[in-house]
Amino acid sequence: MDFKIRAATREDCKEISRMIMELAVYEKMPDQVKISHEELERDGFCQNPFFESLVAEVPEEHKSKEGFTVVGYALYFYTYSTWKGRSAYLEDLYVMPEFRGNGIGKGLLCKVAELGKKKQCVRLQLSVLNWNTPTRDFYAAKGAQDLTLSEGWHFIRFDGQNLDNLANEAPKD
Amino acid sequence: MDFKIRAATREDCKEISRMIMELAVYEKMPDQVKISHEELERDGFCQNPFFESLVAEVPEEHKSKEGFTVVGYALYFYTYSTWKGRSAYLEDLYVMPEFRGNGIGKGLLCKVAELGKKKQCVRLQLSVLNWNTPTRDFYAAKGAQDLTLSEGWHFIRFDGQNLDNLANEAPKD
Repeated sequence: MDFKIRAATREDCKEISRMIMELAVYEKMPDQVKISHEELERDGFCQNPFFESLVAEVPEEHKSKEGFTVVGYALYFYTYSTWKGRSAYLEDLYVMPEFRGNGIGKGLLCKVAELGKKKQCVRLQLSVLNWNTPTRDFYAAKGAQDLTLSEGWHFIRFDGQNLDNLANEAPKD
Repeated sequence: MDFKIRAATREDCKEISRMIMELAVYEKMPDQVKISHEELERDGFCQNPFFESLVAEVPEEHKSKEGFTVVGYALYFYTYSTWKGRSAYLEDLYVMPEFRGNGIGKGLLCKVAELGKKKQCVRLQLSVLNWNTPTRDFYAAKGAQDLTLSEGWHFIRFDGQNLDNLANEAPKD
């Protein structure tokens, strides 16, 4: 199937927002999604944006049964390793179920890698849920290392009241 | 002990570079450090920097046995959650061993949280090694969740030849 991958524009945020929800349903945590397309527009299409995004588009004649032509997205940002330097982090990679098996997911992943290399990034990182073996296998088949298994890295998060408590205890200047 | 936390300047990069190596030795992976203070200067003190950093400084009369007054640092950057929005990520938090137990690590952590909140971040995230129980306990005592344990998130990385392969397979525009 023909598809095109391009940088997302502000006008794509409604479609990206729809697919963020579809991905959260797949990840079994739909009630976790708190942001809207307005926040994506504000945070991704400003000076010093918090993220960048790609979308995958199919021609009108291949539109989804609901009428969508934007059928996948990748959302990523740049991070930093104090051991290796510039890195990229792929927060989300999603292709609508009826469009899978056409190389769209691989195309999005490879394009993010290409853009990262252009910025001299030496790593592309991401996270995946333990039970999500199809996705873990997809990345492993492309040579990715699972650092939680090989080196024992754990993800730690502060949010809500715990984050407020930290901020309130910051030393005064 | 008196100490001061302040935003790092380009001139601090040599000290930060020294402490990055000290932290890597503690993490039992000193041969992994490939970046120098010149790269920190380039990547952290440019337009759209890849990271921000804080340093902790003690007065001259409390300098370390080797003569250092910059005795700790935090290095962090801004990321994005497609569920919750703006987030901060603490890549490194380090205090020289002879200065631990004085609240410097907590001060650095809280200051990063405060700066994150000012940017409307709703999360502060980081990673820690499985065997590093003192550090895991330090964060847990402050209310952090371990998402690898509670939700099963794994860290995945592409680098070296695997990353090159992805980039080379990117669809042509």
